[in-house]
Amino acid sequence: MPTFFETHHKTLDQALEAIRTRGYFSAYPEVPSGKTYGETAKDDGAAAFQARLNKPFEIDQPGKTGTVGDERSPFGVALNIKYPKADLNVLLPAMQKAIPAWRDAGIEARVGVCLEILHRLNRRSFELASAVMHTTGQGFMMAFQAGGPHAQDRGLEAVAYAYAEMTRTPAAATWAKQVSKTDTVTLKKTYQILPRGVAVTVGCSTFPTWNGYPGIFASLATGNAVCVKPHPLAVLPLALSVEIGRQVLREAGFDPNLLTLVADSAAAPITKELVTRPEVKIVDYTGSSEFGTWIEQNAKQALVFTEKAGVNSTIVDSITDLKAFTGNLAFSLCLYSGQMCTTPQNIFIPRDGILVGGEKKSFDDVAGAIVKAVDWFLSEPARASEVLGAIQNERTAARIQQARTEGGTIVRDSAAMKNDAFPEARVHSPLIVKLDASKDAKLFSREMFGPITYLIATRDTAESIALAAKTAREHGAITCGIYSTDAATLKRAQAEMADAGVATSCNLTGAIYVNQAAAFSDFHVCGANPAGNATLCDGAFVSNRFRVVQSREMASV
Amino acid sequence: MPTFFETHHKTLDQALEAIRTRGYFSAYPEVPSGKTYGETAKDDGAAAFQARLNKPFEIDQPGKTGTVGDERSPFGVALNIKYPKADLNVLLPAMQKAIPAWRDAGIEARVGVCLEILHRLNRRSFELASAVMHTTGQGFMMAFQAGGPHAQDRGLEAVAYAYAEMTRTPAAATWAKQVSKTDTVTLKKTYQILPRGVAVTVGCSTFPTWNGYPGIFASLATGNAVCVKPHPLAVLPLALSVEIGRQVLREAGFDPNLLTLVADSAAAPITKELVTRPEVKIVDYTGSSEFGTWIEQNAKQALVFTEKAGVNSTIVDSITDLKAFTGNLAFSLCLYSGQMCTTPQNIFIPRDGILVGGEKKSFDDVAGAIVKAVDWFLSEPARASEVLGAIQNERTAARIQQARTEGGTIVRDSAAMKNDAFPEARVHSPLIVKLDASKDAKLFSREMFGPITYLIATRDTAESIALAAKTAREHGAITCGIYSTDAATLKRAQAEMADAGVATSCNLTGAIYVNQAAAFSDFHVCGANPAGNATLCDGAFVSNRFRVVQSREMASV
Repeated sequence: MPTFFETHHKTLDQALEAIRTRGYFSAYPEVPSGKTYGETAKDDGAAAFQARLNKPFEIDQPGKTGTVGDERSPFGVALNIKYPKADLNVLLPAMQKAIPAWRDAGIEARVGVCLEILHRLNRRSFELASAVMHTTGQGFMMAFQAGGPHAQDRGLEAVAYAYAEMTRTPAAATWAKQVSKTDTVTLKKTYQILPRGVAVTVGCSTFPTWNGYPGIFASLATGNAVCVKPHPLAVLPLALSVEIGRQVLREAGFDPNLLTLVADSAAAPITKELVTRPEVKIVDYTGSSEFGTWIEQNAKQALVFTEKAGVNSTIVDSITDLKAFTGNLAFSLCLYSGQMCTTPQNIFIPRDGILVGGEKKSFDDVAGAIVKAVDWFLSEPARASEVLGAIQNERTAARIQQARTEGGTIVRDSAAMKNDAFPEARVHSPLIVKLDASKDAKLFSREMFGPITYLIATRDTAESIALAAKTAREHGAITCGIYSTDAATLKRAQAEMADAGVATSCNLTGAIYVNQAAAFSDFHVCGANPAGNATLCDGAFVSNRFRVVQSREMASV
Repeated sequence: MPTFFETHHKTLDQALEAIRTRGYFSAYPEVPSGKTYGETAKDDGAAAFQARLNKPFEIDQPGKTGTVGDERSPFGVALNIKYPKADLNVLLPAMQKAIPAWRDAGIEARVGVCLEILHRLNRRSFELASAVMHTTGQGFMMAFQAGGPHAQDRGLEAVAYAYAEMTRTPAAATWAKQVSKTDTVTLKKTYQILPRGVAVTVGCSTFPTWNGYPGIFASLATGNAVCVKPHPLAVLPLALSVEIGRQVLREAGFDPNLLTLVADSAAAPITKELVTRPEVKIVDYTGSSEFGTWIEQNAKQALVFTEKAGVNSTIVDSITDLKAFTGNLAFSLCLYSGQMCTTPQNIFIPRDGILVGGEKKSFDDVAGAIVKAVDWFLSEPARASEVLGAIQNERTAARIQQARTEGGTIVRDSAAMKNDAFPEARVHSPLIVKLDASKDAKLFSREMFGPITYLIATRDTAESIALAAKTAREHGAITCGIYSTDAATLKRAQAEMADAGVATSCNLTGAIYVNQAAAFSDFHVCGANPAGNATLCDGAFVSNRFRVVQSREMASV
């Protein structure tokens, strides 16, 4: 029987090639089709999800002490799943104990297990999609793609980087130095991968798998044990992932405690305690800037990788086609109700208007066209429900109310909306507010997470660029859309945003959006501004998760 | 005229191959021969060193404010060189200003400049050897090799890793995704290296160039500006290196403020202020554990790479040939009077003795043979002077006195020695003290830097291993010598020390020593115990000194 590594080596080779060339690649089909996943996969997935509800989620890991869990679907359904609570004084030592055999099994054994886990996650994509949908509020299609195949691709990318990094040093070498005309000193050397210890992945509530898998798989592949601490409102997708991972580890003859779940609640959070435990040597975090910065400053015993938040801008200088522009932008604003860390918040437009196909259009013309394009997405209920999804939590809904009343001119008001399939869903249409750069900096120089867009009138594009770069430097930013038909302006905007550590997307129209990041090609978060200190995924994301320890010995002479 | 990159690309290619295979490689000849370096090189180097003495060391960098300098050769000569003091409020902004053009010049231009600097450093190896000798106290041959070619090799190794890391992502890619039977979305993507900012290298007093070059060249090659802060007692080697580097930068059309010197004095140290400045984004540190830990804890705005100290052990279980063993060990103990961070301090020997060539020898027999071998190195004055060098500073001399009087049994006493060439040299012969594991843990469970060796009687080899691993975990360790003729014991000792993050050297005899680390093959410091958080040199040492920022644009369709 082939090993897991042998079974999946072609996938690994393709991933290695993709991270080198950074062209398009995906290992896991993104279309939720019966032809790919099996004709019953959709129904099976839905049934499997339903079967999880209203009962305890069992995980056979040590140190269980009571249960916790109060997930409620943004679409209105209480999941009513109870997860085991963990006694860290029992669980963490058990994880440490599991590491030596995992370490000594070698690179191929570990990478093979990771690839098999990803493969099985992929086969369970429909079940995971429902879990992601009913914790994050994403529409089903998005939950399937971003929570399933795209997340699996990001996990594979991390495994590929880990494999490349671990194999760049050979396991053994012969060092022969000629020390005189006749004499050579020869040493046999061995180089061994030494994992750091216990790694913790702190999950987020919006993309628990997509943001979680890279750290989980990078740490696991490099020989560490991984403790997964999901966001209290989005436990199920990661709990399922841990369950699947433990199953593969067990089948491969390893201690399943290499991958564990630590669930908590908003009322009794455990993350601060967990990430500062002496056993914890690596922390991967996705979530709010405030808490991410706390971890960066306080988890001094660990390597800390953060993906936080920021204020994303779009700089509108000049365009060719108004409809192509607004259609593209409006989808980015509507998608998942602006609850992506890559969604544009501040749209900078010169207050004297812009050239559209060589013809001057006023600020209000452009603003009106953006509103119209957003309205179009919402005009058909099924499309609106799929695109908007639901508002993940109450605080985001409250933030919309705050933005409605605290200043500027509302050019498109937010309203509660119905979702035909889920009458209790928390749905609010996007809010668009007009601000002026000369007096509203207080309002737009902060993150307003959710379906809240500011159209900001500026003196000119130079001011738009300067403000976009300034907010990125001060508050972080992950993406920046730039629209300009002038090559020199485009280049200047790209350069200034690059200098602020922001990835730019220029003149996007059609079916590719500023808030999408493709595994193997796009670096998600730059790591050079307050939006995070790491990227998904590069060499720096994996190279320090392990050390190399060497031994040398006189060769027989 | 070929570019610097073209001129040196073969050297780079060889270095890239060497870090991949980790066999023997050296780019810079270690033999101080007239045939290699020019028949007058030795005299020229000595004259150039003499010409530096008793005058100001001029560097044309901004923000000079007064002078500082009180280096005194451990061989007894006051250097009487004054270096400019730096106003950080002027110097650091000038360095920041130099970065964009350096960044935008691209990988090959930067790497070419680094390779040319290394080449010129190599041509100046004799001058640098005198500077290293008369600041560190190393004998001339060691100062030439470790301070010259071997240091240059370590710098080249860092450049090779930086080049490999920067080029693993292409500068541009085409991403084409088929979105339907007939449609493909195509994006042109560019990936740009974004340096962190100003890097600081904090030099040490014993190996200023060997430990300094890796960080300096890794940061410079990846687009950062580098501020060199030498140890107040070993400024000249790094000041010369900065001068040479600035000359190459200027010739290549770059702002020389990409490489600057910040000198200070023991009385008015500036390091704490410097490494916590907001402009400083990277710190490389070599020196005491206490100060290194302070930097790790306090320079939160920067990436911090530390090479600190530790307690190195040698585990003696069984040997084939007593003389081959003691000759090898004694040289390691005598070399540079034990002032290497890789020198063994604790020699663990079972108190019931060991098998030597199958025959039992008592603890005292073995101890006596070690003492005899050390005495042999000191028996001929010229050899003794060359091997011992001089004691770098008074505190190390005082530590010998402390060790003589605070416990244990002296089996070889330390005494002041004469150096015929330098009558004022600070020379003390090695001290060897016998301790017992059962009662002297307090004495050997700490670093006693200098020519101080503890021979520690243990219950058995298992206890020797346990104690060596324990001190490594608690206090750090960089190297461990292991002597055993039993394969299983050897393997167990290797595994337990590896688990503690210590590089092992097994059964060394002849002309290769536990305290030597070869560039391109040996990882110096593991990064997995308190002796330091980084290694010279691996992917993790370079990969986070820069970020990659991307831009993507719709391809014309």
